[in-house]
Amino acid sequence: MEQMLVQNGVKKVQLLPAVNDDHGGVIVELEEPMDPNIFHNMLRSSLHQWKLQGKKGVWIKMPIQLANLVEPAVKEGFWYHHAEPHYLMLVYWIPETGNTIPANASHRVGIGAVVLNEKRELLVVQESSGRMKGTGIWKIPTGVVEEGEDLFEAAIREVKEETGIDTEFLEVLAFRQMHKSFFGKSDLFFICMMHPLTFNLQKQDLEIEAVQWMSLEVYGAQPFVLKHGIFKYIKDLCLAKAEGGYLGFTPVPIKSYFDDPTSYLYFNEDGLVQ
Amino acid sequence: MEQMLVQNGVKKVQLLPAVNDDHGGVIVELEEPMDPNIFHNMLRSSLHQWKLQGKKGVWIKMPIQLANLVEPAVKEGFWYHHAEPHYLMLVYWIPETGNTIPANASHRVGIGAVVLNEKRELLVVQESSGRMKGTGIWKIPTGVVEEGEDLFEAAIREVKEETGIDTEFLEVLAFRQMHKSFFGKSDLFFICMMHPLTFNLQKQDLEIEAVQWMSLEVYGAQPFVLKHGIFKYIKDLCLAKAEGGYLGFTPVPIKSYFDDPTSYLYFNEDGLVQ
Repeated sequence: MEQMLVQNGVKKVQLLPAVNDDHGGVIVELEEPMDPNIFHNMLRSSLHQWKLQGKKGVWIKMPIQLANLVEPAVKEGFWYHHAEPHYLMLVYWIPETGNTIPANASHRVGIGAVVLNEKRELLVVQESSGRMKGTGIWKIPTGVVEEGEDLFEAAIREVKEETGIDTEFLEVLAFRQMHKSFFGKSDLFFICMMHPLTFNLQKQDLEIEAVQWMSLEVYGAQPFVLKHGIFKYIKDLCLAKAEGGYLGFTPVPIKSYFDDPTSYLYFNEDGLVQ
Repeated sequence: MEQMLVQNGVKKVQLLPAVNDDHGGVIVELEEPMDPNIFHNMLRSSLHQWKLQGKKGVWIKMPIQLANLVEPAVKEGFWYHHAEPHYLMLVYWIPETGNTIPANASHRVGIGAVVLNEKRELLVVQESSGRMKGTGIWKIPTGVVEEGEDLFEAAIREVKEETGIDTEFLEVLAFRQMHKSFFGKSDLFFICMMHPLTFNLQKQDLEIEAVQWMSLEVYGAQPFVLKHGIFKYIKDLCLAKAEGGYLGFTPVPIKSYFDDPTSYLYFNEDGLVQ
């Protein structure tokens, strides 16, 4: 992958190894340690070359072990695009015209699980950490959707982890979009209807203070449920669902036009059949 | 905000300015340039101090201008949490026990806009960049939801930008969750039903090749629509909606338990009333 810049038949300086992306740009994936000055020279020559070639965006994926190469890249005009625990992605836009660098991930995704048993009791927990700690509030199990995890998988996993109950996913009853919830990022929270398959409560020790089955009436009579939007809607949605009149969105696997992995489309399946 | 470590009555070394977070940790927001060696010493002393104080997570928000301080932080065991164009957030976990550092944003969010006029014609575009370029495919206007933007705002904005048409947001018809769509991140795509308020087409030059009103039959007869999941579902949802039998999710503003900004809950409003 190593490349040389050849000028008048003379090898001048090594260029950075790069592969083309699908949008007229190049991607450099650094792997081996390098002297920062040598890197800086190679980067400058490479940028010159890419400019001549009419390249647009330039991406550098820099493993955390090469943190000493961040500064020279920034000196050449690169900025940060995103970071994960083990790497930093830097980006640069060569053309004079406005850049079309794609946006970074902007939302964290969470789920809340509505698990109703046949006695119309709701599965609720008290949390032992976070903002709910010490409030005495009984709430539905909630959690963050992990990387690459489907919403319905996350809901099943969180209920099992927090309460020991096995469930089957039925549908998304509602979702909430909230801004500035976390380092300026937004949050999408999906309220999921689940059917319990087991009934033996076994609370998780790390994050959960207590767990129980609670009648919808007692849940709904908690003062904060009466006052606060989302808790009240969760109760109303439970009741509407329990009485059979409410249609949420169910997941159906679909194919993409391109060769993307299978994904799920969530929609009102009954509404589509009519 | 500057702090000194005092030992046996002797001022030893400056500590980094830090504020407590809500989870037993501290946040350092660096602003002024600093010599990397001095920073490294201050960080080491500060970590020692925070350890004695029983602190848990340590966050360092480092503006891109201070890229020369990334390496010393990484040498002390910090790793990357997330990055935005102008800063890098580094994090460190002091306790021996498992870390509860919250996850980074994991999803990009997009919208697709279904705009049907009274003749049951669908507003469609051909794209002049990206994966759809040159395919001849007529598709609904789509776009990425910007930071802090509500889904319904994004749908109105994208239709206006791409086609010149003003619209009113009606409801979310369906959404798709897809994985590994972008640097290993996931994608949530919301199909939104819109009502057109104006009808003069004015295509955007940068990304759009052509725009028109197209009968649902012609849209649906495109070969890829017949073959590929999401395009076919978009047609089916259009038809179900045009015939009045389909209920999607509409946004309702709600209050949070905490003092978060107003957010929107999307649900089947008709289903809840019953």
